[in-house]
Amino acid sequence: MSSVAVISTLFSAEKWSDNDALLDEYALALNGSRCRPAAIVWPENEDDLLELVNAANHHQFTIHILAQGKNWGYGTAQATASDQVIVNLKLMNSVLEINEDDAYVRIQPGVTQSQLHDAIMSNGASLQLDITAAGKHTSVVGNVLERGFGHTNYSDRFGSVLSMRVLLPTGKIIETGMGAYQQSVAKHVYPYGIGPVLQGLFSQSNLGIVLEMTLALQPAPDFDLNIVILCKSYADAPKVVCEMARLKRLGIVTSGVHTASMARAMGENAKNVAGAWVVTTTLSGPKSMAKARYREMKKSLNKTVPGLRFVALTRQRWNIIQWVNKYLKSPHIESLKIVWDLKQGTPTDDAIKTLLDHPTAHSQMKTKDFPAYFRWICAVTSSKTQDIERMLEICRPLFAEHGYEERYTMTNVTERAVVLIANIRYEKTPESVVRAKAFYKALDTALLEQGFCPYRSGSGLFGDIYPYIEPNHLALLDQLKKAMDPNQILSPGKYWCGQLPSQPQPQPQPQTEKVDREMLAKADG
Amino acid sequence: MSSVAVISTLFSAEKWSDNDALLDEYALALNGSRCRPAAIVWPENEDDLLELVNAANHHQFTIHILAQGKNWGYGTAQATASDQVIVNLKLMNSVLEINEDDAYVRIQPGVTQSQLHDAIMSNGASLQLDITAAGKHTSVVGNVLERGFGHTNYSDRFGSVLSMRVLLPTGKIIETGMGAYQQSVAKHVYPYGIGPVLQGLFSQSNLGIVLEMTLALQPAPDFDLNIVILCKSYADAPKVVCEMARLKRLGIVTSGVHTASMARAMGENAKNVAGAWVVTTTLSGPKSMAKARYREMKKSLNKTVPGLRFVALTRQRWNIIQWVNKYLKSPHIESLKIVWDLKQGTPTDDAIKTLLDHPTAHSQMKTKDFPAYFRWICAVTSSKTQDIERMLEICRPLFAEHGYEERYTMTNVTERAVVLIANIRYEKTPESVVRAKAFYKALDTALLEQGFCPYRSGSGLFGDIYPYIEPNHLALLDQLKKAMDPNQILSPGKYWCGQLPSQPQPQPQPQTEKVDREMLAKADG
Repeated sequence: MSSVAVISTLFSAEKWSDNDALLDEYALALNGSRCRPAAIVWPENEDDLLELVNAANHHQFTIHILAQGKNWGYGTAQATASDQVIVNLKLMNSVLEINEDDAYVRIQPGVTQSQLHDAIMSNGASLQLDITAAGKHTSVVGNVLERGFGHTNYSDRFGSVLSMRVLLPTGKIIETGMGAYQQSVAKHVYPYGIGPVLQGLFSQSNLGIVLEMTLALQPAPDFDLNIVILCKSYADAPKVVCEMARLKRLGIVTSGVHTASMARAMGENAKNVAGAWVVTTTLSGPKSMAKARYREMKKSLNKTVPGLRFVALTRQRWNIIQWVNKYLKSPHIESLKIVWDLKQGTPTDDAIKTLLDHPTAHSQMKTKDFPAYFRWICAVTSSKTQDIERMLEICRPLFAEHGYEERYTMTNVTERAVVLIANIRYEKTPESVVRAKAFYKALDTALLEQGFCPYRSGSGLFGDIYPYIEPNHLALLDQLKKAMDPNQILSPGKYWCGQLPSQPQPQPQPQTEKVDREMLAKADG
Repeated sequence: MSSVAVISTLFSAEKWSDNDALLDEYALALNGSRCRPAAIVWPENEDDLLELVNAANHHQFTIHILAQGKNWGYGTAQATASDQVIVNLKLMNSVLEINEDDAYVRIQPGVTQSQLHDAIMSNGASLQLDITAAGKHTSVVGNVLERGFGHTNYSDRFGSVLSMRVLLPTGKIIETGMGAYQQSVAKHVYPYGIGPVLQGLFSQSNLGIVLEMTLALQPAPDFDLNIVILCKSYADAPKVVCEMARLKRLGIVTSGVHTASMARAMGENAKNVAGAWVVTTTLSGPKSMAKARYREMKKSLNKTVPGLRFVALTRQRWNIIQWVNKYLKSPHIESLKIVWDLKQGTPTDDAIKTLLDHPTAHSQMKTKDFPAYFRWICAVTSSKTQDIERMLEICRPLFAEHGYEERYTMTNVTERAVVLIANIRYEKTPESVVRAKAFYKALDTALLEQGFCPYRSGSGLFGDIYPYIEPNHLALLDQLKKAMDPNQILSPGKYWCGQLPSQPQPQPQPQTEKVDREMLAKADG
């Protein structure tokens, strides 16, 4: 029995579809590649999902789980191979608990950034979200599981997970943390539980389906200073990022620090701005502490990199600036608004507009309607100045050679590690897709060869990284996958857990446009 | 072929032993129970260990790994059942790297707290250890893997693990974090790596043997205030602990906070001190920030619990006090010295002396030479005042009923969770062992029944917790164990991974002393 036949007997018509146009929509990733699924299912609750998992085991078909499917730049909604059944959990979107006393929320995977933000606001809880720039309609759980990072003191989003309720591919449900016990007063507050810590197994993996997540939230701070630092020279950034890591280790800076190249921060407006990099962070706490932090940070940075320009925004100042800007309509202030919103945990679609250089791009847009294509490239480095310099020296000539603008951010994701995110936007023509693919391949390879390796990947991208993974590590992932998903029903090959099936994997040619196959072959070589 | 026969062919005489007296020594736990191993092996390096693991797989015998074997209060050096081969890694004790720039160390499992402290001091690195009160000669890696906690900003010791090198029971070696890649610039600084996060699998488990650990260290702070707070009334503690959790969430308090009952803090000297609880923490950072923290903390605590007494010690003040105490010899100052040393990351055996009320107890003492027995009981609670009160209300009448002094600490181990550690010391007579066992059983059960569950366990203690673990969780642990250790060579049953063998498990009767079996049976019932 085919997967579609099974699904059609299990679910009523509104819960699934194999409509052609819809399958096309899910097939297309924002990098221009395609990977067509067999069907889409929208379970409404755990029972629906359990039924589907049991059926997949019984009838031996493959499912691929999405929280919302907006994993732009990392494979979007694509499965690990074609003809899989895509399971979109967007209808499982309850905010189950907002706990102000213990400062956490419990949410289902379909909950979006905006929805959670609104729920907290209307609840009146004095809690602050940590969000990503991916936009209003992206899943919180989806991003956390892929280990995305944000902008506040809780920017290490995966580090904020307190517990998970997980449906295993065998159809059993477990809970991580103190949920290992049948009953625990600390059920949602102590993530290690007892015995092996299992939480990590369900992040960047295909070993379970997260049904609920408890996420620690930061109490809304009494006072915060949003800091913007302008670096005049290209050479300043590695030193600033290194110093910021030191300040984080000293507890002076506690939020995520983002250092963006001017083209990345300002999009098309970058041409009008003097300076090479924009650094942003937040210093929060009781007023006396936030101010002490600012003095210490400024003193240290001025000593390390002379000539930086600092802007420290309080809410009061920001309100005045916004009022003035009603008349000025400065693009600089518009860019600053994105930063302000991100630091306050207010979901915004504005960053997407900058990313795609398009005033109407938004996070509910269908992939095909996006005005341009793009893909991320990410790499982790130590926070040492010379490592960061070496990483940029790999990137810079490749951007120049391939004729793209240098768009990067470097984020101090922890007190010791820095993640580079590079991207280009490109036209939706076959030629530019092929050209972009050649660039990505060259940059991916150059970074990996020098040990600057991704912190994250996605459907269609695993194959390029595979040769760089340690063989014993691959063997262990395989053992775990076989033990936990003996019938390999869940996204086989995702993050190298289990084998990618021998079906066609995501392909770079757009189906609706003619592509010169020779050009593609050249890009591949 | 017996395990001993195999080992005798593999290793020269100085690397192993089945000497009777030695086996007796390893058999005895500090709670007075015994579990005799078949032999002891001391591998000198990874090759020795690999050979042993391969032999165990080939000849089907069971090994049990110790870092040093001083897991006092949680089963000491006992294996999960008798006749296992105990593998003590004390000779694998290299400090492999002290990295001041990135603020971490890389160490082997045999490295002790004192050894690491001395290595950092003689290297001149400006780094501060986070230590436990267990003493100078206990293993750093061993305690971190059991998720012990300390006293500084890095008190969540397991949360400070950046990477591990692990020998799997199948004989393969993997590295966690960025070690998933064959080569990574960020190898020891980004713990999540790519794909599933595997680190947690090797903590509180029998799924691998940790060969090396990279541990993040706190840069030695410019300035710190060691804070001691005295609570007059028994009822104060739950409110203080709850408020401390809130202050931790606000970033005002960042170190571990320990709230000890007077009997626990002062031992026999408690009788001479007015007050019910002693709270200790450290506020560190640049001087301006540490002082701002202190003002905020004091203001909040005074508002929550009137009548607290605060002592804030700088190094300068402490030096004066110590100088004066040369003449005074006050036991209060002696107790304060323990706190000072712990907060500074200076390993000390003084806490053991307090714990056992014995002036000559030390961390190199053989278990049989300890002047008394004891065991820990631990329980995790939320930081809510009413949960903490409820927990103490369970303990208090049981301590009274069984006639023991209330000795506890409550530690704010994270920003949301609190761990209670209770203990009693008892005489090494059969009667007091039996009496203690009855007390532990009553307290364990009462806490577990109300959802106050242990964060940690140990050999001989797993059976009591087993009925409270979720069945699906047990099934998953079993799947993982079978996948990763198909021949069950590594401590089967540890933390419920795999089945406890049907061999005799650790028994409460001291072999060298006669015990009234009827009394024991009564205690069991």
